[in-house]
Amino acid sequence: MYLETINGPQDIKKLGNEQLPILAGEVRTALIEKLSQTGGHVGSNLGVVELTVALHRIFDSPRDKIIWDVSHQCYAHKILTGRRQAFVDPDHFRDVTGFTNPHESEHDWFTVGHTATSISMAMGMAAARDTQGGKENIIAVIGDGALGGGEAYEGLNTAGEYDSNLIIILNDNDQSVAENHGGLYRILRKLRESGGNSEQNFFKGLDLDYRYLENGHDIDALTALFTDVKDIDHPIVLHIHTTKGKGLAYAEEDKENWHSGSPFRIEDGVPKNGYPVYDTTVYDSLVDLMKKDRRAIVLTAGTPRAMGFVGEDRAEWERKGRFIDVGIAEENAMAMASGIARGGGTAVFGVYAPFLQRAYDQVSHDLCLNNNHATILVLLPGAYGMKSNTHFGLCDIQMLAHVPNLVYLAPSSKEEYLQMFRYATTQRRHPTAIRVPVRIIEDGAPDNTDYSRLDRFKVLSRGKGIALIAVGALIPIAKATAQEYRKATGRDITLINPCFLSGIDKELLDELKRDHSFVITLEDGVLDGGFGERIASYYGPTKMRVKNLGISKAFHSDFNAERLLAENGISVERLLELIRCFDKGGDIA
Amino acid sequence: MYLETINGPQDIKKLGNEQLPILAGEVRTALIEKLSQTGGHVGSNLGVVELTVALHRIFDSPRDKIIWDVSHQCYAHKILTGRRQAFVDPDHFRDVTGFTNPHESEHDWFTVGHTATSISMAMGMAAARDTQGGKENIIAVIGDGALGGGEAYEGLNTAGEYDSNLIIILNDNDQSVAENHGGLYRILRKLRESGGNSEQNFFKGLDLDYRYLENGHDIDALTALFTDVKDIDHPIVLHIHTTKGKGLAYAEEDKENWHSGSPFRIEDGVPKNGYPVYDTTVYDSLVDLMKKDRRAIVLTAGTPRAMGFVGEDRAEWERKGRFIDVGIAEENAMAMASGIARGGGTAVFGVYAPFLQRAYDQVSHDLCLNNNHATILVLLPGAYGMKSNTHFGLCDIQMLAHVPNLVYLAPSSKEEYLQMFRYATTQRRHPTAIRVPVRIIEDGAPDNTDYSRLDRFKVLSRGKGIALIAVGALIPIAKATAQEYRKATGRDITLINPCFLSGIDKELLDELKRDHSFVITLEDGVLDGGFGERIASYYGPTKMRVKNLGISKAFHSDFNAERLLAENGISVERLLELIRCFDKGGDIA
Repeated sequence: MYLETINGPQDIKKLGNEQLPILAGEVRTALIEKLSQTGGHVGSNLGVVELTVALHRIFDSPRDKIIWDVSHQCYAHKILTGRRQAFVDPDHFRDVTGFTNPHESEHDWFTVGHTATSISMAMGMAAARDTQGGKENIIAVIGDGALGGGEAYEGLNTAGEYDSNLIIILNDNDQSVAENHGGLYRILRKLRESGGNSEQNFFKGLDLDYRYLENGHDIDALTALFTDVKDIDHPIVLHIHTTKGKGLAYAEEDKENWHSGSPFRIEDGVPKNGYPVYDTTVYDSLVDLMKKDRRAIVLTAGTPRAMGFVGEDRAEWERKGRFIDVGIAEENAMAMASGIARGGGTAVFGVYAPFLQRAYDQVSHDLCLNNNHATILVLLPGAYGMKSNTHFGLCDIQMLAHVPNLVYLAPSSKEEYLQMFRYATTQRRHPTAIRVPVRIIEDGAPDNTDYSRLDRFKVLSRGKGIALIAVGALIPIAKATAQEYRKATGRDITLINPCFLSGIDKELLDELKRDHSFVITLEDGVLDGGFGERIASYYGPTKMRVKNLGISKAFHSDFNAERLLAENGISVERLLELIRCFDKGGDIA
Repeated sequence: MYLETINGPQDIKKLGNEQLPILAGEVRTALIEKLSQTGGHVGSNLGVVELTVALHRIFDSPRDKIIWDVSHQCYAHKILTGRRQAFVDPDHFRDVTGFTNPHESEHDWFTVGHTATSISMAMGMAAARDTQGGKENIIAVIGDGALGGGEAYEGLNTAGEYDSNLIIILNDNDQSVAENHGGLYRILRKLRESGGNSEQNFFKGLDLDYRYLENGHDIDALTALFTDVKDIDHPIVLHIHTTKGKGLAYAEEDKENWHSGSPFRIEDGVPKNGYPVYDTTVYDSLVDLMKKDRRAIVLTAGTPRAMGFVGEDRAEWERKGRFIDVGIAEENAMAMASGIARGGGTAVFGVYAPFLQRAYDQVSHDLCLNNNHATILVLLPGAYGMKSNTHFGLCDIQMLAHVPNLVYLAPSSKEEYLQMFRYATTQRRHPTAIRVPVRIIEDGAPDNTDYSRLDRFKVLSRGKGIALIAVGALIPIAKATAQEYRKATGRDITLINPCFLSGIDKELLDELKRDHSFVITLEDGVLDGGFGERIASYYGPTKMRVKNLGISKAFHSDFNAERLLAENGISVERLLELIRCFDKGGDIA
């Protein structure tokens, strides 16, 4: 085992050239073994094993600085930079995160999980180097999928007139999360098919130097290429063709399925915990819409599975121009949705909450300023959604609720989701965003609410004295609290589902003043700038006491939702404590 | 005068070919006359007169849909689509806005003022057309400067694999607001110099069809080109070379100065109201920083003048790599700033508040998640800043204050700005944003505050009973209110300058509870999700009465700041009313 001897890049340099492919094989075996036990990003990591070995063979990290885009392909890098144990010893599997992490190693420069950021960050590192007289290599490694993002282009454009060392490695495995979309990818294919010689060359079209390598798994070729460009005095793009999932036949075969996943049997790829069962509520609602409304168009920015679109059904809707995947390009998707609405169509853009951040300006300026009636489905929002600080989804309310004209709806059940979706996609008066619950639970009774009467909160049950206003996903905790309170005291708490996060029901809030003296708000996102504060503000000049509960402002990571909420006062137990304290006239601040 | 006969595009079609240049001349004369009286975007509008005449000659607007990027070049379009009077009759000069506006005309499709949006919006219109079986032409007109923005690239990329009608007109006048930056612009030059035949072609690099026209002021050539591509069955880029400021020698000569401006004398271009005098506080602070700190780098996204960088001084800092203009590409600038900080440099990114919206994800993920110590100067924020709904700057607090790790500072005076700037650019613990006041007023006494003690509000004067907490720019109103109140009652109000918008001073707020019963917050931005609500939330569980004052949630436009603030309760008079009402035990809600 060579791998056992590798405690850092310096040890790779001690090996003979002929030993490098063996080392790469060992790294791949270790990766497969760990991934089969823990799950994770399979395809991207298996695709860059040789590239990573070659990088650390030729360059001198951390003096030379390698910046990984998205960084979901950094496992081999971690193995080779002193973090081997976290990949070979099950007791240490959780010692490292799935992304680059400067807190783990001096070989990692940024904590990242979003696409398209590496070139700009590398340009910044290069600019800083230049003012300090440094001579080190700055290297960005970016995948073909990420290259469709506007930020990557902006970085390339700046690099195109930069005149010092910058090495941009395009790891082209001809696959984004799903298949690629866009003219760029036709050109990348032409470049691959011509051995880099196609006259149509996107990179030369930005005045960048360019070299192509057909076999990105040939370590000799990789080290020769890297040796050639090491210490280069200007930016260059190295277009390297790799195979996503390399070394696992089923992953090479079905790249989309093997982008990331759960633990699996190595022999055949069968998931150890069974095939995941996805809720089809969102997918069914979209297909139902497209069948009823021939002008309806559904948009995704590179994550079609997030809404359940897969296989031949997806391809069929795409051919009809009714399902459009723009690649990882949320700005474009949001602006297109506005354009579709303006053109008389019904547009729905489904996007994970953390990635909608990339389209904040397009939500505000392109869509809401124009008051076009497109619908945004905000997927995996809040504490129950994504749980890595690199995929931070605790501020969706902050991002959307204050934007003029936008109606932000938070369903608490399947029935509410369906009714809100129907409302959003059949009205033409305003843009709507729907905070799709992570777990869509049936309520049992159909929802017939007329949501065109904006900002009407729903009173779920009436009590006296105390009211609980709970955003969507927290309704169950609010209900359970009320039940427990009733059991203990015989008294009823008023329960309110606001439904609308972008406005407040002044009439109801005024009415509560009659026989309530304490209002508690619950939200499963960051408290600061969120939903509850608006209630506190409304009641500010009155005698109503208000307690806002939400999550502390921080890039929380790897958390358990229930525990994080409880730490911030949101659990049946903590709520009962708070209410008891209020009942006794204690300090509720 | 042909112009008098033009009440819509149909009237252009009635003219003979030889009359079109005369019409164009009349349009240009009218534009110059109006611009000389009102000011506005001079260069961009004079550059597209012939192009606009030719568009309306050949295409059938509004059946064919023309989408103007930024739309600060739409004046000729407005003149030719029924809005002539607003350009020739001084009594009607204010009838139209400076941007496309669907409320004005069926020939305008979007209200826009941000760059890089047109291609995506046009793609959306095209997708909507396709589902409806439409056959009309969809035309996006975009300038070379706007093409550096990521959203434009994302749109081009999607267009690159689209297979129906879409005409993208690149209006290339070889100038952004300032000079262009990026490899793309070297390529555009090569294309211009080769008559469109350079092998390096950015557009073909995205698999787009492409044609070049050297003289964008030759109406015959323009109409021939447009006739050729009308009803084309796939996307095409028409690269048309124009001259910014065409027809005004001094504007052609000094394109940056004549991007937009105030009323001027036609004969020599001298401003009628005198040359503007700019405050140099920000510029001086940046130059001072760069002189003291050799690792300091200042970044702009296409608006170097916003920080006072002009002429040879700017060029000199650029050559040193200390001032970097990335073009209109805020995502890249923000990510680069994070990279510079990570690389050991001191990065300052100055950006207009509305345009920072484009970098929301980069602020959160690229910068703040990494807790890098870059500084953002937020320029022209709030009610005193930009005043068009297309340049909406009333939500900067909403956009920034909730982002973890970011410290958002609001100076109220020149001295505070300088001390906060010094603090931000010499500490290495966190990213900082500074809300630069639109009018920077000297206080008279130096500020020696230690801002490393985060979230300490400043008590400007102590009173009893009532406290006013006023964000930066509103301190003068708060002070005047306190003075008037003292005159009238002999009593003192406590005045607080929070300085920090991203946190609250709990100690001070607790202390106020001792001898205060009413706290008023003032902010010159939208109330919902802003600064004041956090104070209301903190006091929510207590007996403290709180009134939050800020601006109503809407895309306010063409407003007078004082009037808008007063309408929302923020004026000395309105505040005194509120306080009197409180004193009398009246209803302050």
